[in-house]
Amino acid sequence: MRNDSLDSLFSPHSIALVGASTKLGSVGNDIAKNLLHGGFIGEVFPVNPNATELYGTRCYPDLTSIGSVPDLVIIAIPAASVPDILRQAAGLHIPAAIIISAGFRETGEAGAKLESEIAEIAHSTGIIVLGPNCLGFLNSKLHLNASFAPRLPRRGPVGFLSQSGALMTAVLDLSEGKLGFSKFVSTGNKTTLDEKDFLAYLALDPETRVIAFYAEGLSDAPALIALGRNILAHPQTKPIVALKSGRTESGMRASGSHTGSLAGTDAAYDALFRQARILRADSIREFLDTLSVLSANPVPNGPRVAIVTNAGGLGVIAADAATKAGLSILPLSKKTTDILKPLLPVAASVGNPIDLLGDARSDRYRIAIDAAVNDPDTDAVIVILTPQSMTEADETARAIAQTKRDCGKPVLAVFAGGHALEHGTTILREAGVSVFTYPEEAVEALGLLARISNWKTKRFTPKRDFHDIDRTRVSAIVSTVTAEGRTQFTEQETRETLEAYGFPILKSRFAANAEDAASEAEKIGGRVALKIASQDIVHKTDAGGVMLDVRPEEVRERFTELLDRVRTKKPDAKIDGVTVMEMGVPDGRELILGVKHEPGLGSLLLIGMGGIYTEILHDVAFRFAPLVPEDAEEMLSELRSYPILRGARGEDGIDMGPVMECLERLSRLVEDFPEITELDINPLSTHGDKSLTRILDARIAIR
Amino acid sequence: MRNDSLDSLFSPHSIALVGASTKLGSVGNDIAKNLLHGGFIGEVFPVNPNATELYGTRCYPDLTSIGSVPDLVIIAIPAASVPDILRQAAGLHIPAAIIISAGFRETGEAGAKLESEIAEIAHSTGIIVLGPNCLGFLNSKLHLNASFAPRLPRRGPVGFLSQSGALMTAVLDLSEGKLGFSKFVSTGNKTTLDEKDFLAYLALDPETRVIAFYAEGLSDAPALIALGRNILAHPQTKPIVALKSGRTESGMRASGSHTGSLAGTDAAYDALFRQARILRADSIREFLDTLSVLSANPVPNGPRVAIVTNAGGLGVIAADAATKAGLSILPLSKKTTDILKPLLPVAASVGNPIDLLGDARSDRYRIAIDAAVNDPDTDAVIVILTPQSMTEADETARAIAQTKRDCGKPVLAVFAGGHALEHGTTILREAGVSVFTYPEEAVEALGLLARISNWKTKRFTPKRDFHDIDRTRVSAIVSTVTAEGRTQFTEQETRETLEAYGFPILKSRFAANAEDAASEAEKIGGRVALKIASQDIVHKTDAGGVMLDVRPEEVRERFTELLDRVRTKKPDAKIDGVTVMEMGVPDGRELILGVKHEPGLGSLLLIGMGGIYTEILHDVAFRFAPLVPEDAEEMLSELRSYPILRGARGEDGIDMGPVMECLERLSRLVEDFPEITELDINPLSTHGDKSLTRILDARIAIR
Repeated sequence: MRNDSLDSLFSPHSIALVGASTKLGSVGNDIAKNLLHGGFIGEVFPVNPNATELYGTRCYPDLTSIGSVPDLVIIAIPAASVPDILRQAAGLHIPAAIIISAGFRETGEAGAKLESEIAEIAHSTGIIVLGPNCLGFLNSKLHLNASFAPRLPRRGPVGFLSQSGALMTAVLDLSEGKLGFSKFVSTGNKTTLDEKDFLAYLALDPETRVIAFYAEGLSDAPALIALGRNILAHPQTKPIVALKSGRTESGMRASGSHTGSLAGTDAAYDALFRQARILRADSIREFLDTLSVLSANPVPNGPRVAIVTNAGGLGVIAADAATKAGLSILPLSKKTTDILKPLLPVAASVGNPIDLLGDARSDRYRIAIDAAVNDPDTDAVIVILTPQSMTEADETARAIAQTKRDCGKPVLAVFAGGHALEHGTTILREAGVSVFTYPEEAVEALGLLARISNWKTKRFTPKRDFHDIDRTRVSAIVSTVTAEGRTQFTEQETRETLEAYGFPILKSRFAANAEDAASEAEKIGGRVALKIASQDIVHKTDAGGVMLDVRPEEVRERFTELLDRVRTKKPDAKIDGVTVMEMGVPDGRELILGVKHEPGLGSLLLIGMGGIYTEILHDVAFRFAPLVPEDAEEMLSELRSYPILRGARGEDGIDMGPVMECLERLSRLVEDFPEITELDINPLSTHGDKSLTRILDARIAIR
Repeated sequence: MRNDSLDSLFSPHSIALVGASTKLGSVGNDIAKNLLHGGFIGEVFPVNPNATELYGTRCYPDLTSIGSVPDLVIIAIPAASVPDILRQAAGLHIPAAIIISAGFRETGEAGAKLESEIAEIAHSTGIIVLGPNCLGFLNSKLHLNASFAPRLPRRGPVGFLSQSGALMTAVLDLSEGKLGFSKFVSTGNKTTLDEKDFLAYLALDPETRVIAFYAEGLSDAPALIALGRNILAHPQTKPIVALKSGRTESGMRASGSHTGSLAGTDAAYDALFRQARILRADSIREFLDTLSVLSANPVPNGPRVAIVTNAGGLGVIAADAATKAGLSILPLSKKTTDILKPLLPVAASVGNPIDLLGDARSDRYRIAIDAAVNDPDTDAVIVILTPQSMTEADETARAIAQTKRDCGKPVLAVFAGGHALEHGTTILREAGVSVFTYPEEAVEALGLLARISNWKTKRFTPKRDFHDIDRTRVSAIVSTVTAEGRTQFTEQETRETLEAYGFPILKSRFAANAEDAASEAEKIGGRVALKIASQDIVHKTDAGGVMLDVRPEEVRERFTELLDRVRTKKPDAKIDGVTVMEMGVPDGRELILGVKHEPGLGSLLLIGMGGIYTEILHDVAFRFAPLVPEDAEEMLSELRSYPILRGARGEDGIDMGPVMECLERLSRLVEDFPEITELDINPLSTHGDKSLTRILDARIAIR
């Protein structure tokens, strides 16, 4: 699906409604009323064989009798009849359809079969399908309520997608008078169109400046990441804000989700949103607050916030919250404090927060807000007002609105009071100033905005191209493993796979006799390990078949000793020779790298410091493949133990280069072989000296 | 101050107001109006030499001319005249005073001097003083507004203390119609009475069931901890909820705070609240929400919550938030699901959340809420409603209110909508049901309540009494250090101090000759270290004066070798002999124990795992002295690395006993010597074998 083709869905000139009902309170009646009485100026053709007219508009017995081809058909009839109608619509070359009807995948196997039929019709005929099992959509510019939601919202810049119908109606109700929408789409079962299609459409929609979505599940992480990054990189960035539920174990159970590691799945979504440059809200309130701030304000240039207040205590609370939200509360520039000092009472504070004292009237606020906004060291301003006896809430509201109008920086108001501040709050809201009751909430929303400004300063380079990769060799291994009905790679297959993809594995050579062993050891250099090579011996150590830390000059002698030992313990084993293997490097830092296949999403890559850091402290970072170098960098820097890797407390840091390279090679490997469901490199021994980075052990499984 | 003596302050029969003003809008006029026209039935005596009457009440030229002794005098005159009036009031045996006036400590040195004068009068005469620099207080039962806050709040169970006057007026305005208060006190500069006095008073006040305070700073942690624990342990627990600002660096700067480690200071307060069993709210909203839930609900018996919803998506969101807030979303009991299944539609979910589907009317809600409340595996119930076309908000509100009335469990409502649910919300509020717009906020407040239920299950044993402590010896050391004008203990003084308090230090003995050295080494047992003993040699290692890992049989020979070596390098040094010292135990876990004096609060104890765990991962836990065994236990279990100490990944755990004992001895040491400002034990080497726990290095500083 290409997004430009969604115009006939979202901006139709004419609409047929199959299932238009005369029964009050029914879905088919609600939609008809919304289409006909909502202000939509296009043509509407109700289809109902048992009625001649509905709400003063002629009814048609079926789609064919309409006589012209509508741009969109809305289908609100029992599920079983939907495929026939959809086929008919496609046959009439109607370009788009909304399937409101429920009774598909969500009800079980029979429903799922019906849904596949719909998908098949859509794919084979090209008809665009929204739903099934959805509320429809709203287009406020066209006054088009193509849904059974009770009313059209105010027109505004937010394009909203919701996987939950109930959340859609709740949000419409909650945001009345506070948020304006361009489009509001109930995505339903997302059979052929999902968030990515709608995001691509909204990214180009001139009515939309801010994109929001609520999702319980998503698919195809790489596509979503590419899309999100593109939208961010566009000069006219449209911020994307997401609310994703199913974060925790209970949440997952409530959304009836799968068996994977649960914390893991939420961490995967966290990584996905970060990687796609989508802001993830923590709660419904934060979600709606952030949309409100984004609707009314530009994205700030940085994280520096000035706070103006008539209540010291609330200033402290706001400053606390700001720091927690990743914002900076720096002192104002000297120029600004020089301006302010003579204009404010002696007891006022011209630090940050600027404390105007409890008796501040609107003139004092006006002076301080102007100064704060004009300070070059300030990226955004929060104005806090509490109702004191001298307070002029309405006049102060007007002062805030006036300063905000053309200043080019976010200006947020906190009117911390109830009835006493109601009128002032209305003034602010009508002037397009985001206003909050509590300082913490203004600050949190602003914190999310500042994250966008941070993201905008970062550029992604193309993903690294590795020319030393032997894909054919791994293909052959995968074929063998599959042919043998296994899911686990053998040690040898794992080694070969990693070698073929240029990972720094321990050097290892086969030697049939003592002479060869000595010469191979010389080639490897330094001390080596000798391991018995025999198909008949699985547990080498138990069979006495492993010798560690053998000096080069001892190899010949030890070879014989090893074979004697094994022959004594396993007289029947056929012995091929030994593997001569480089010893791991002592004193390295041990890292864990891994891959976990997230069904429907993609290959999730993991990095962490070995041992307890990962297992007990859960200090790991995730990203989806494919990785570009900046992704690998961000992964490393997200680790709490990053300072240790960089070299803390006078200890040497490691060379990050080979670690990043391993991550990028890992990404390439799972891109080439998405059938790899699990891969653990544990440990990767790293070092200040790049040439000493080595994989000591690894494990690969495919499906 | 004893809390029963606060009755004359908070429940006076008669009040004099010095500074009663005829000037409209002045503080003295506002208070007069509030006292006289607020519904207070006691006597009020306005004092103003220039007026004969005020609001229809006779004015008196001064306190003496009143002719009777009022219970309380409110003083609202310029700061400079306050001491005289206070002295006069005390002379007249007026038992209590509120000093509204500002212009004291907060304005600088001259003000601070005035404030000391007030403190001195209070202490010498026994007059109770609230303030100065405060708004006064409200007593809603007496309809007494002894403040210049604009109006009396609704009567209710919350006793509220606020260090910030602006926050007090903002809270009164914000909570109108939502929260009821018993007392509301503006604590001002807290010169003679502070939170602890008011907490003790409110704990016994029959009008108060829930205690709340906002503070920017607190004092005397041990007293607050004892008080908080006592209030919790009382059969009629009154939950205490606190909002403390100045959490972060910026917050601290805004509150103009001191130089100590900033993160440290907030961590200190976190520890203090946990130790005192005071709930700390994270934001103003959470603070007020929690008070509202506590006002209307019993403390739950545990963390198990059932969620009832007509919107699956919001159920998932609530379940996510619940898990994050420490609540449990467990499946309902089989008995409950057996009851529900036949009564609900097939598509409804009788898991937890119970999803009633979008078309649920009030009858379906009633069935589900009743079942959830009666489920023995449920400690609290959250009912979520979104406005769908079939929704009966008002009837559902009544069903919730009815079920809640006598069920003995918290029942919270989430009405997630705007205008459509306004009337239902009002029904709930009037019926005393806490109602929220967003599920996350209901859940967070309930999470705090569940923490109380958890605290109530824990008992504290008395602090351990150590009989092997030599306090006199440490007193002597402290005297020496002080007399010599030092703040740092020498290595020897540190050793002696730790030894005197029974800490497991490395055994160490002085030996003047080789013979003695050998016999001392034998007494110590095992390998030893030899260190040169000479007042002339500061850097022992540089002088060749240290030998490690000496076997007992070698000691005699090595003694001579060591002395020869030192004599060569430092021919002029006077050598006393050597110190023979036990070697540290290899392979132990290294812990850091420490003390930091928090000015005004007390001695803060710290524990963490050594090295990067503490320095990079900031994995440390704090408690204030004095510690009881349960405090030491909680400290250890709060460490993220606790599973490592217990023995993770097949490794041996350490014996926690000696570690806890060290913490408790440390607590005793700083209790006996609060002049210790800093103490680091780094490391304490611990082991699975208790007898191998040893302090390897330590440092002590006093003021």
